[in-house]
Amino acid sequence: MIQAVAWKNDYLELLDQTLLPETTGYLEIRRIEEAFEAVQNLRVRGAPAIGITAAYGLYLGLRDWTGASRDQFFQAMEEKIRYLASARPTAVNLRWALEELRRNVQNSAETDIPALKERLLRLAVDLHEDDRRRCELMAQHGQAVVPENARIVTHCNTGALATGGIGTAFGVIYHAHRSGKKVQVFADETRPVLQGARLTMWELAAARIPSQLICDSMAASLMKQKQVDLVIVGADRIAADGSTANKIGTYPLAIAAKFHGVPFYVAAPLSTFDLSISSGQDIPIEMRNESEIRRVFNKSLITVPEAKCWNPAFDVTPPELITAIITERGIIKPPYGETIKAEGRLPARPQ
Amino acid sequence: MIQAVAWKNDYLELLDQTLLPETTGYLEIRRIEEAFEAVQNLRVRGAPAIGITAAYGLYLGLRDWTGASRDQFFQAMEEKIRYLASARPTAVNLRWALEELRRNVQNSAETDIPALKERLLRLAVDLHEDDRRRCELMAQHGQAVVPENARIVTHCNTGALATGGIGTAFGVIYHAHRSGKKVQVFADETRPVLQGARLTMWELAAARIPSQLICDSMAASLMKQKQVDLVIVGADRIAADGSTANKIGTYPLAIAAKFHGVPFYVAAPLSTFDLSISSGQDIPIEMRNESEIRRVFNKSLITVPEAKCWNPAFDVTPPELITAIITERGIIKPPYGETIKAEGRLPARPQ
Repeated sequence: MIQAVAWKNDYLELLDQTLLPETTGYLEIRRIEEAFEAVQNLRVRGAPAIGITAAYGLYLGLRDWTGASRDQFFQAMEEKIRYLASARPTAVNLRWALEELRRNVQNSAETDIPALKERLLRLAVDLHEDDRRRCELMAQHGQAVVPENARIVTHCNTGALATGGIGTAFGVIYHAHRSGKKVQVFADETRPVLQGARLTMWELAAARIPSQLICDSMAASLMKQKQVDLVIVGADRIAADGSTANKIGTYPLAIAAKFHGVPFYVAAPLSTFDLSISSGQDIPIEMRNESEIRRVFNKSLITVPEAKCWNPAFDVTPPELITAIITERGIIKPPYGETIKAEGRLPARPQ
Repeated sequence: MIQAVAWKNDYLELLDQTLLPETTGYLEIRRIEEAFEAVQNLRVRGAPAIGITAAYGLYLGLRDWTGASRDQFFQAMEEKIRYLASARPTAVNLRWALEELRRNVQNSAETDIPALKERLLRLAVDLHEDDRRRCELMAQHGQAVVPENARIVTHCNTGALATGGIGTAFGVIYHAHRSGKKVQVFADETRPVLQGARLTMWELAAARIPSQLICDSMAASLMKQKQVDLVIVGADRIAADGSTANKIGTYPLAIAAKFHGVPFYVAAPLSTFDLSISSGQDIPIEMRNESEIRRVFNKSLITVPEAKCWNPAFDVTPPELITAIITERGIIKPPYGETIKAEGRLPARPQ
């Protein structure tokens, strides 16, 4: 199994995802500035993986701190948190992970500085381990919807590269494969940033899962030819009514699945649910730079240089197009407005 | 107005579309093999433009023929027709143009070889002029479906680069613009070969039509936000029931349009109708090389080198997703099975 983020006793090892798929290169992150740079320049990406990296980064930024007072330590921590959070201003998990650490450290009665530092590291390791466990649980619950010999379409990258474990949607596929279900995957290339082509195909090859790469516009033809048994994708944010924001291209895939009667699943940890948002239209959609469309890999120009582009990073799939949502607690089914609320025990953030 | 295909007295001049938008380069086609290569490698593309190129190519392949017998000339012609037709198997206009020439030459009483050759050239020139006229007629009929200030999504390239005139779907847009309707266009980039990004955006810029480039996966989000008034696309082949084969990505666009209640139009000359094919499932779909997906512009590798890809060039949109078909004779509406047959005056091939 790939380890995109790994704590190596005294440094953080990161798989440099900007080099994939051509080169498998690892970075040794020993300083907070290196963690910041890796997050900002997408060397590590995927909501959970970014949060975990930031947590280790915060420890690295404080482990050589030489002051003696608890208050001064917290002051230094505050500064480092602000610094790390600014690496990807829109990444919710990044801020969430850092706030978890802050809250937990500040709530401790500990006054000994080395013990506070030790606590930070243990919290980062726990966060990482927690994510790994949630991935495994999602993968296990997800098996209920994956038949033997399933032919699966997926979108974007949701595997070990994006999480602290085997992944969300990818984790479900991976677990089906390792338990002998003989699945086949069609991976959407996922324009404009091509996470499917670059990262998911690399993970599928590494796991020896039979796979084919398709352009985002080809899945509907596969469905028409009855070559798809199910679609499974991840999520960036899920509203209280089940509306799911995910990488751009998820919504037309869900429409096509509905049109062909193909089941469409979302796999996401409970931390993805944002119960403060009641419906899809209230989920803010990040608009990204036009150059992401104009140039492939910031290099090859694919259009006229002055072309205007419309580049939303995400789209929102309404609940009526989603067959079920797979979480670490089990499978949530429609009507989501009721099932999500009725669960009650469903927290806005994981505990 | 751009001239992508032009007969220059003794050679065919082709705008090499594989170099666009960075370079505007022209090819001098003097031999049939060069015409074949240009069609196969998409230097010239678009159903009508391919037909016109093949017609000139047939003449070029026979102009230096040195035999003396009419029968032997026809035999040589037959061989050249088979050769040219094999360059793009789904392109019905390619075979249609060649068959038109064959029929017309064989039906002539001419026995003089130079006169037969001269006749072939004149037929190619007539075909070219005929296409130009049909584009203008389609553009005029199409105005009935384009309101003032229309926001239009289109797919692939259907303009002057793809035809002998102002285009099919693009011609309708172009005519709306030049008659002052203040239209705005969202152009699908059209993976994998990016005809929308490279060619349509180039034509839109040249015509000063307000436009934005989107990835193929983004049109559904635009529709959801009520930013699209209509979709208009071209066609490579239309079956007797109205099923329309067009560039891959057309079908999911039509599904999304239906889902959002956005009208979806096809603009195509009558030569695109193939009444020998009763429904969409009988339209043969050309599978293209996997490397078209793996590498952008045959250069930048976007995935693992050994990635398998599934790369159909076209998809088929069923008649129930098509609001109307715009031809040079007028607008055809559902139920297509009846309207197309009932027209009676609609020939399998234009006269």
